[in-house]
Amino acid sequence: MRIVVTNCNTTQEMTEEIVRGARAAAGPGTTVTGLTPAWGPESAEGWLDSYLSAAAVLDTLRTYEEPYDAVVMAGFGEHGREGARELVDVPVVDITEAAAHLACLLGRRYGVVTTLERSCGQIEDSLEAAGVGRNCAAVVGTGLGVLDLDDSDRTTRAFLVAAQRARDAGAEVLVLGCAGMTGLQRVVGEKLGVPVVDGVGAAVKLAESLVSMGLMTSRAGSYAKPLVKRRDWGRPGVGRGAVS
Amino acid sequence: MRIVVTNCNTTQEMTEEIVRGARAAAGPGTTVTGLTPAWGPESAEGWLDSYLSAAAVLDTLRTYEEPYDAVVMAGFGEHGREGARELVDVPVVDITEAAAHLACLLGRRYGVVTTLERSCGQIEDSLEAAGVGRNCAAVVGTGLGVLDLDDSDRTTRAFLVAAQRARDAGAEVLVLGCAGMTGLQRVVGEKLGVPVVDGVGAAVKLAESLVSMGLMTSRAGSYAKPLVKRRDWGRPGVGRGAVS
Amino acid sequence: MRIVVTNCNTTQEMTEEIVRGARAAAGPGTTVTGLTPAWGPESAEGWLDSYLSAAAVLDTLRTYEEPYDAVVMAGFGEHGREGARELVDVPVVDITEAAAHLACLLGRRYGVVTTLERSCGQIEDSLEAAGVGRNCAAVVGTGLGVLDLDDSDRTTRAFLVAAQRARDAGAEVLVLGCAGMTGLQRVVGEKLGVPVVDGVGAAVKLAESLVSMGLMTSRAGSYAKPLVKRRDWGRPGVGRGAVS
Amino acid sequence: MRIVVTNCNTTQEMTEEIVRGARAAAGPGTTVTGLTPAWGPESAEGWLDSYLSAAAVLDTLRTYEEPYDAVVMAGFGEHGREGARELVDVPVVDITEAAAHLACLLGRRYGVVTTLERSCGQIEDSLEAAGVGRNCAAVVGTGLGVLDLDDSDRTTRAFLVAAQRARDAGAEVLVLGCAGMTGLQRVVGEKLGVPVVDGVGAAVKLAESLVSMGLMTSRAGSYAKPLVKRRDWGRPGVGRGAVS
Amino acid sequence: MRIVVTNCNTTQEMTEEIVRGARAAAGPGTTVTGLTPAWGPESAEGWLDSYLSAAAVLDTLRTYEEPYDAVVMAGFGEHGREGARELVDVPVVDITEAAAHLACLLGRRYGVVTTLERSCGQIEDSLEAAGVGRNCAAVVGTGLGVLDLDDSDRTTRAFLVAAQRARDAGAEVLVLGCAGMTGLQRVVGEKLGVPVVDGVGAAVKLAESLVSMGLMTSRAGSYAKPLVKRRDWGRPGVGRGAVS
Amino acid sequence: MRIVVTNCNTTQEMTEEIVRGARAAAGPGTTVTGLTPAWGPESAEGWLDSYLSAAAVLDTLRTYEEPYDAVVMAGFGEHGREGARELVDVPVVDITEAAAHLACLLGRRYGVVTTLERSCGQIEDSLEAAGVGRNCAAVVGTGLGVLDLDDSDRTTRAFLVAAQRARDAGAEVLVLGCAGMTGLQRVVGEKLGVPVVDGVGAAVKLAESLVSMGLMTSRAGSYAKPLVKRRDWGRPGVGRGAVS
Repeated sequence: MRIVVTNCNTTQEMTEEIVRGARAAAGPGTTVTGLTPAWGPESAEGWLDSYLSAAAVLDTLRTYEEPYDAVVMAGFGEHGREGARELVDVPVVDITEAAAHLACLLGRRYGVVTTLERSCGQIEDSLEAAGVGRNCAAVVGTGLGVLDLDDSDRTTRAFLVAAQRARDAGAEVLVLGCAGMTGLQRVVGEKLGVPVVDGVGAAVKLAESLVSMGLMTSRAGSYAKPLVKRRDWGRPGVGRGAVS
Repeated sequence: MRIVVTNCNTTQEMTEEIVRGARAAAGPGTTVTGLTPAWGPESAEGWLDSYLSAAAVLDTLRTYEEPYDAVVMAGFGEHGREGARELVDVPVVDITEAAAHLACLLGRRYGVVTTLERSCGQIEDSLEAAGVGRNCAAVVGTGLGVLDLDDSDRTTRAFLVAAQRARDAGAEVLVLGCAGMTGLQRVVGEKLGVPVVDGVGAAVKLAESLVSMGLMTSRAGSYAKPLVKRRDWGRPGVGRGAVS
Repeated sequence: MRIVVTNCNTTQEMTEEIVRGARAAAGPGTTVTGLTPAWGPESAEGWLDSYLSAAAVLDTLRTYEEPYDAVVMAGFGEHGREGARELVDVPVVDITEAAAHLACLLGRRYGVVTTLERSCGQIEDSLEAAGVGRNCAAVVGTGLGVLDLDDSDRTTRAFLVAAQRARDAGAEVLVLGCAGMTGLQRVVGEKLGVPVVDGVGAAVKLAESLVSMGLMTSRAGSYAKPLVKRRDWGRPGVGRGAVS
Repeated sequence: MRIVVTNCNTTQEMTEEIVRGARAAAGPGTTVTGLTPAWGPESAEGWLDSYLSAAAVLDTLRTYEEPYDAVVMAGFGEHGREGARELVDVPVVDITEAAAHLACLLGRRYGVVTTLERSCGQIEDSLEAAGVGRNCAAVVGTGLGVLDLDDSDRTTRAFLVAAQRARDAGAEVLVLGCAGMTGLQRVVGEKLGVPVVDGVGAAVKLAESLVSMGLMTSRAGSYAKPLVKRRDWGRPGVGRGAVS
Repeated sequence: MRIVVTNCNTTQEMTEEIVRGARAAAGPGTTVTGLTPAWGPESAEGWLDSYLSAAAVLDTLRTYEEPYDAVVMAGFGEHGREGARELVDVPVVDITEAAAHLACLLGRRYGVVTTLERSCGQIEDSLEAAGVGRNCAAVVGTGLGVLDLDDSDRTTRAFLVAAQRARDAGAEVLVLGCAGMTGLQRVVGEKLGVPVVDGVGAAVKLAESLVSMGLMTSRAGSYAKPLVKRRDWGRPGVGRGAVS
Repeated sequence: MRIVVTNCNTTQEMTEEIVRGARAAAGPGTTVTGLTPAWGPESAEGWLDSYLSAAAVLDTLRTYEEPYDAVVMAGFGEHGREGARELVDVPVVDITEAAAHLACLLGRRYGVVTTLERSCGQIEDSLEAAGVGRNCAAVVGTGLGVLDLDDSDRTTRAFLVAAQRARDAGAEVLVLGCAGMTGLQRVVGEKLGVPVVDGVGAAVKLAESLVSMGLMTSRAGSYAKPLVKRRDWGRPGVGRGAVS
């Protein structure tokens, strides 16, 4: 099975880290290919970045020509999920919803620990729209930017502080609220004594599950194929093309 | 990986059918063992049956001594899920929630088609508690009892009629609302032109996902291990009888 | 009028305490009979206990042959309510919902003070399903087990501490969150300066109200009579044992 | 026990009918006194009437000098409930909430059948604020005005038609949505085959329950006693007085 | 354009303050007329006052004979809004909803800072019914009575303390929760560094918007014209009249 | 006052139509400038188009260098709103939320009539996130594409049919669910006998209101200014620039 994992930003190192996490979760026989958008923000932190990222990720999928069986969208709380479901003919799983779906199976309430406080609202809205917001006890920020996560000691310390706030709000399970946190789940899980779900791994497993069951996105209603029309993907003279 | 699938009733034939469905979904290297409660209702249809079934299934798990890596509870809309999470040290996935989790990934709204109308309320409550009720557009009954599902032509016809009501309510994806419907997904999916999710298969895939990621039920809060105390699982020497 | 009060556990002393509370609330001409399940947990603390208790209580009602006019189910936050409504032909009132119904009449928001934190989630779900969760400001645990409540000084102290947390969350009325707290309402009410509702008394009054108005459980839809079928209520000759 | 029942309009005949219904429900030893506002609308149909009625009913209670143990407010969906809780030192029960509280005990979902469609919104809001809106499946109008209810055949026919719409929406129990329908419950209940709850009787039983349990409205927070200040209850020169 | 602003209490000085605030917000060509009820409470603090105020304000509008194009109801969290929509043929805007509507445009979550804690519940209910409660993070009291607001230093200090609680709850925008706070928005906004919305000004702008767009209250359903009937607006012999 | 109105698609004729609608609503002294994205979809119909549109509109605002006082985003149900609030230093109003805010003032429930059924879900989510979804009774499609609206007779007929479905669902006020419907409100309003709100006009009035009150988007929390970082707005070599 071939899974394409799309980074939501243009930072190649982060794509590589995400792919490492995805491969660690993938089953035997699953190959993982990482895609880095050719444009967009170097990191997605806030709504402006998120909408720019959504278009860039959709453009990346639109122009990727190798065959694949499923898409994992690796932007935690970022937009674009529903558009990808319209665009491609294979299952699409976003790491935000994926982590929440598995977290719901492990405790009565879960919490999300993410990067900057400014991202909490987007994540809340994304969980709500995905239909898994009901059992989310809290979304808490660590105050660290996406590109500040490379210092894993600092990230771990900040995560543990934020995690306690989520626990106090009733969370029995925690979710890593950024693709850049992939790999952190084991160490913080041991320190916290609660399960910690990594969205990248969760999305890979859910994508494998859908593919192996032969389930595809519904074309009835919301996620019908995009209509054939003129669309310009970037300034005139470039990135032009029609979905058909 | 060893998955134990618990039927919610005492009908051995149904356990076998469920096991067939579970094995069809299981990945290579996963073994599926079916357990049939030694007591409880011959079919679970309504709240009385559901609570009797919950205790019987927990007793079955409590006294099952072979090793296993995960539990799939195969009673659609039946109780017991949270109790099993307290009881065993491995992940527990209920087919009701499992089908809904995957359905949420395939369309904006999903619908459930089940057996008797009397079961719809239990299913709605079960989805709500599991945290995936938000995107459920409708739970619709076919009017067929659990043990009437063996006539697959009649079941298919009844399913298609009920499915249309769910579609009219906004469902873009459908869920088989009874473990006894396992296997029906392909034929009704083709006729309806929308994805149809089988809870048994979905639960097997989610259980495999949790196990392969090393995720366990949280012991913090709701699902702490049961306290050590005196519990009697049925009255000595009696307990047989039919309500009429 | 004859009211049957079912304890949710096998501890006879607790049944007697509950019956005392029920009789203190009962009107002239109402007789109260307490039933102690012949099997089940010695105390209900958590989901496993609750489901075991539900089946045992239903079995107790199923096999009780004296005539009665209403049932009061005296397990706070425990399961079984809807099953009893299917089973018997008289009104059934659960102390969880009963306390909440009366509390809603006394203040804009109410809070529940219960035993162990692990029980809070069950209570929240029970209130929600009963349709009275909207005005519940908080469900707070005292950290005391069900069988630890006999030391009434300690219970009172723990109740007052937990009650303050509920008040801080907006509760204007408090509910005793365990049948074993029956009798505590007067002393804690005076100390707190807010009304405190005892579920056992509340359920007795609501049961008397329904009976005197000639109202019965609806048989249309959810609570239709159980279907006639084979049900085994416990495994012949066995079922004893403690989880440890 | 002395219960005061306040009509929400100035129509004396309706007060008498409500008192008949209240007495039919009252227990031995309960006396019922009906109060008709000296001002306000001759019938409450819509928001303007409801707010005028609320002030007139509060003025009626404010100036009623006989002793009593509880108040039943007999305006279905009309305003004033919370103000009366501030004003008087005894329990206050509104027939809207009372009917819903009992209906929740009789089925999983209930429906309300009322007079004019224009009143449905007020009733929905009143149930929601009272904390019992969650299990309300529908509020349906008969198209009959409050003062048109005296033709009981026509009212019965209109009720049955509207009731079917509530049943189709999932209602398993019905509520008489106007104090003027008191007495109708038996005949329509038999024809419909579901329990039908009369709010006047329900409120009397709940008021008796609160009084017999010694429960009073909480003074902590929302329903603290009104502050002492200048209030004019009608045009200058009349109805003047201060609550103190 | 002629806007009538109704004070919710009988304190003339407060009407004048409200009119000053309204005129400061009004566009060129808009005239503002303040109305002080001839009866009702000298200040509205709690439910009793609010219902009395609602009737008095409706009576004031009913008997005001000058022409006007819109009504602004200047009681924050007070009742009457829907009744005025039935009564008059021009748009009606309540300052509670108006402030919330604009606040929703300025941040993801807003908070309200009001007078006494006892008023918080009414405000929450009013926002919910108006359809703008979803993004309200908190309603917080300052502990100051309506007629204590004239000491603007004390009011400012109390507002800042309460505002911090709303900010901690997630509010990104604040609302002045009393008409008597009009004028405070600039100073507290600067100190807090967040936008602060004054309901009086907001309601004037929304009323101007509706009028200039030619939009009127819908007569279909909830806000149909009041039926012609006998209504007494105060004790017999005075305030009598029929809406027709 | 200078208001910039952004079309969500690249169709110049539609921008002109929107500007006509905006100018018709604008007050004296308000100038309206229409912006057409240099890239994006020729019409926004579905999630893929919506995300592409969001990025293109943000790029358009980012690179527009004339001074202005407020932004009106004229894509009904389209994304981008929150990103624009981060990006610009003046108030931003989206026509979706604007229409709903005014509709809430005119009736108890409102409905939206839009173009293709596939857009209904986006609109529902947009209203929910904006905090005004609670009183939305229905979002109904006409089956007409955005670029099919020029045949106003056909559009009117389709609108009336869809409007009836919204009315049947309880809508007392209707909203034009596409910027391309601007101008239709008068004719359909007369035929339907209910107020019909045009989002373009509504957004202009709300933008004018915010500006005249001196209210700006909160920078505390969700809508803080975008961080300074590398962002590519389209394929490498073009559209490059950093927000700072």
